[in-house]
Amino acid sequence: MTTRTKPNCSIARTLDMVSDRWSFLILREAHLGTTRFAEFRTYLRIAPNILANRLAAMVESGLLEKREYQAEGERTRSSYHLTAAGEDLKLVLAALQQWGDVHVPRPAGPTVVRRDKGSGDLVDVGFVGPDGSAVPSDDVVFEPVAGGPADRSGWR
Amino acid sequence: MTTRTKPNCSIARTLDMVSDRWSFLILREAHLGTTRFAEFRTYLRIAPNILANRLAAMVESGLLEKREYQAEGERTRSSYHLTAAGEDLKLVLAALQQWGDVHVPRPAGPTVVRRDKGSGDLVDVGFVGPDGSAVPSDDVVFEPVAGGPADRSGWR
Repeated sequence: MTTRTKPNCSIARTLDMVSDRWSFLILREAHLGTTRFAEFRTYLRIAPNILANRLAAMVESGLLEKREYQAEGERTRSSYHLTAAGEDLKLVLAALQQWGDVHVPRPAGPTVVRRDKGSGDLVDVGFVGPDGSAVPSDDVVFEPVAGGPADRSGWR
Repeated sequence: MTTRTKPNCSIARTLDMVSDRWSFLILREAHLGTTRFAEFRTYLRIAPNILANRLAAMVESGLLEKREYQAEGERTRSSYHLTAAGEDLKLVLAALQQWGDVHVPRPAGPTVVRRDKGSGDLVDVGFVGPDGSAVPSDDVVFEPVAGGPADRSGWR
């Protein structure tokens, strides 16, 4: 965790916790059900020291919870599980995925889809109004809060 | 732009285009209406060489379009405008923002909100089903596509 003053911008605060490519990809694996160090390592082809470093940082920042497990006759090992905060990053990952599928598509099509496990429908990420219905992206604006830091350079 | 083989995962492909903190923050400024080099520099307190580097990369990758303008009696300067692909990152920025406001909230409250400029309502980011209504995040799963790369390690 950084010790400097927290930025006013909530995008920046989120990026303070997951700002590098490996962290996002480790979170993607966690959201697909991966929990064990060796599995993360195999699926991501990531160097063990980098993996250990990123997992420790995400445990420290509260995105993952570390647990111990022991298979019969083997030494104790660690597994990593999404916390509620880590689970909530599902929407961020889904938004990154959806943009990639539209703007830098894989010729053979998507490799992972987002599905409503109740209805079986495929789902998109979008803006949702207070009545629970989709709002077109073109209709949505980012608006600095009135009475917030008046100086534009102050709200970072 | 990277010249290595494109990853199969659409999250990874998106991160190849915007994977660092500065790029996200420059895009945030662009979404708030900033277009001029000097304004980006002032609002972000970013070193000019880093800003120039990131703007050039985002022009190259098609997120921003560079235009020339000239004020009366001054030299020609460049401005930077979101392309359609850059506009579509609104949802990614909004998802990062929403997560930050929930999980690392600013004590004095959010500094920027998302508003439907038609109705004036505040809007959230969420999952949306084919009927245009919100789907709870807990109901949504990431599902590897059947018939896609069978090897889990192959679809990165």
